[in-house]
Amino acid sequence: MRAARSHPPESDLRVVSHEPLNAETVLSSQVGILTPIQRFFIRNHFALPSKWSGLRVDGLVGRPLSLTMSDLKALPSRSVAVTLECAGNGRSTLEPAVPGEQWDLGAVSTAEWTGVPLPLVLQQADIASGGVEVLFEGADDGRPPGLSDLIHFARSLPIDKALHGDTLLAYAMNGKPLPPEHGGPVRLVVPGWYGMASVKWLTHVAILSDPFKGYYQADRYVIHHDDTVRPLQAIEVRAVIVSPRAHDVLPRRRHRIRGYCWSGHAPVDRVDVTDDGGTTWYQARLLDAVSVYAWRPWELEWHPRSAGRTVLHARATDAAGHEQPLRQRWNSLGYANTAAQPLPVTVV
Amino acid sequence: MRAARSHPPESDLRVVSHEPLNAETVLSSQVGILTPIQRFFIRNHFALPSKWSGLRVDGLVGRPLSLTMSDLKALPSRSVAVTLECAGNGRSTLEPAVPGEQWDLGAVSTAEWTGVPLPLVLQQADIASGGVEVLFEGADDGRPPGLSDLIHFARSLPIDKALHGDTLLAYAMNGKPLPPEHGGPVRLVVPGWYGMASVKWLTHVAILSDPFKGYYQADRYVIHHDDTVRPLQAIEVRAVIVSPRAHDVLPRRRHRIRGYCWSGHAPVDRVDVTDDGGTTWYQARLLDAVSVYAWRPWELEWHPRSAGRTVLHARATDAAGHEQPLRQRWNSLGYANTAAQPLPVTVV
Repeated sequence: MRAARSHPPESDLRVVSHEPLNAETVLSSQVGILTPIQRFFIRNHFALPSKWSGLRVDGLVGRPLSLTMSDLKALPSRSVAVTLECAGNGRSTLEPAVPGEQWDLGAVSTAEWTGVPLPLVLQQADIASGGVEVLFEGADDGRPPGLSDLIHFARSLPIDKALHGDTLLAYAMNGKPLPPEHGGPVRLVVPGWYGMASVKWLTHVAILSDPFKGYYQADRYVIHHDDTVRPLQAIEVRAVIVSPRAHDVLPRRRHRIRGYCWSGHAPVDRVDVTDDGGTTWYQARLLDAVSVYAWRPWELEWHPRSAGRTVLHARATDAAGHEQPLRQRWNSLGYANTAAQPLPVTVV
Repeated sequence: MRAARSHPPESDLRVVSHEPLNAETVLSSQVGILTPIQRFFIRNHFALPSKWSGLRVDGLVGRPLSLTMSDLKALPSRSVAVTLECAGNGRSTLEPAVPGEQWDLGAVSTAEWTGVPLPLVLQQADIASGGVEVLFEGADDGRPPGLSDLIHFARSLPIDKALHGDTLLAYAMNGKPLPPEHGGPVRLVVPGWYGMASVKWLTHVAILSDPFKGYYQADRYVIHHDDTVRPLQAIEVRAVIVSPRAHDVLPRRRHRIRGYCWSGHAPVDRVDVTDDGGTTWYQARLLDAVSVYAWRPWELEWHPRSAGRTVLHARATDAAGHEQPLRQRWNSLGYANTAAQPLPVTVV
């Protein structure tokens, strides 16, 4: 694997941290459904690993496997357009501020992923009875802030999610070999779940008889609320506006407001926009969906009613009845902050 | 517009001619549905035009238009995954040989195109009664072999096809601004029709009261058969094998044969493969379709019955009952030669 560029051009990505590299997409550049690779957001927990030497599959299995890239490519493949979003997307707007990468709204992008449906590999390995979770370990390792152990990034999935035909061992992205900064040569892609589930640089898959309690499973990527701790799974419903951009100066005539919407729970079936803080809502038109897992573009013809500073908000609702909140739901680690964000423009 | 690379890397594209640049995709590199831009086949009739200064819409219209790129981007947009194929794809295998670009089978690729549905622009222009066709002219010009006039590339569409909501004025390809070698800044995309209809570097759209009889409409892109002349329109049904590759040496064990299939008439609902010249046929498994206009991957588990030289053929059938021919249908200009091609391998 080659080393990633540590300074992508600012026009393609906005760097959030350099070591490790974390960078968000510039949503105002997004057109169509797919995000070109060089504009796809990058989320790393550690430095890029320097090598990948195959994929082991073991644990509670009848037949442990050791798979090379050629082995994977010889299996049936599948291509799915999937939106990945970092659970920390929108964290930077929380008040009071919380630690962690200070993502604005660009820790989300969409690609066509090609790979082997995970169940095909698990069936080959012959899962024994008693398995409750499947563990996924990456080649990347490091020492998270405040932890003394050197650990590999690792996550688990419930066994039924691992056996879903859309959960992929992906080796290609938008038709190209999966680049190292996106987890190449092979990563997990878990459609509909926040990005932490889609383990990059995958080296080890194991069937577990007990739930996994690793740092990135139990101490991070969980939402603390009162005395409860809830693990992050499905992506919460959200709409973003990509045009106009914040602080644009717009003549007082008709404008087309454009954006994207998505939810990991169910298809989004409604996006509304307000230009007066929530008193008046205008329903946007949703464009065609290409996949149940990919964001969907929306548009609205908008005629400003008066000149001056105007604040736009967009709010999505999905078919399962989840509605995007208008106010933040603060949590100490800053996850799933899907509150509709103000987009100020000036009408002249 | 910048000049195109005249020598793309051989690994990305196989150059068929340098002036003008024509190059085909290397099908064995194709994974997933979309073809990356640098591997997308290039079909030019003339040198790349050096400038584009907007799009005129006139002819039988109530309101002639002059549109800039900003005007186009302010209109509602649409993104569709569409396979484009050159009508001359497969010409090189015809016997006896015919003149024209000697395409093997790689004059076909798939992209996500984003642009304005053409009917929105035509409605703005207010089509008058009496219009029968819509003319499309490109900025590219030259003198075709044997013709004395310097002409612009130009094609027409029947008015109902032009008014179809999937016919696009495309300004983006796989999420990027449309590159000049693919007709940027704006081209027509006519899903389901051979590529000549998708006029590149589009500068002029006109509503016509009589059928257009230009060189590329009436003298080229037609099939002469006995005394009849049939214009090329919908893409004929075809399957290609992308793995194994011709002349591969394969151990005698199970192999996965992979390929793509498409038809401009109707979805492909069947692909069969023979390893004995048509006596025995094996039905392949079709993978998910992402769009009615995009090719569809297929796969077949194949166990060679004997060692030695073996010839594979794949044949597609679409839902409208069109079956790919096993023998060539020779025509003097070499169009739509969809005959199933032999793929020789050696089993050891």
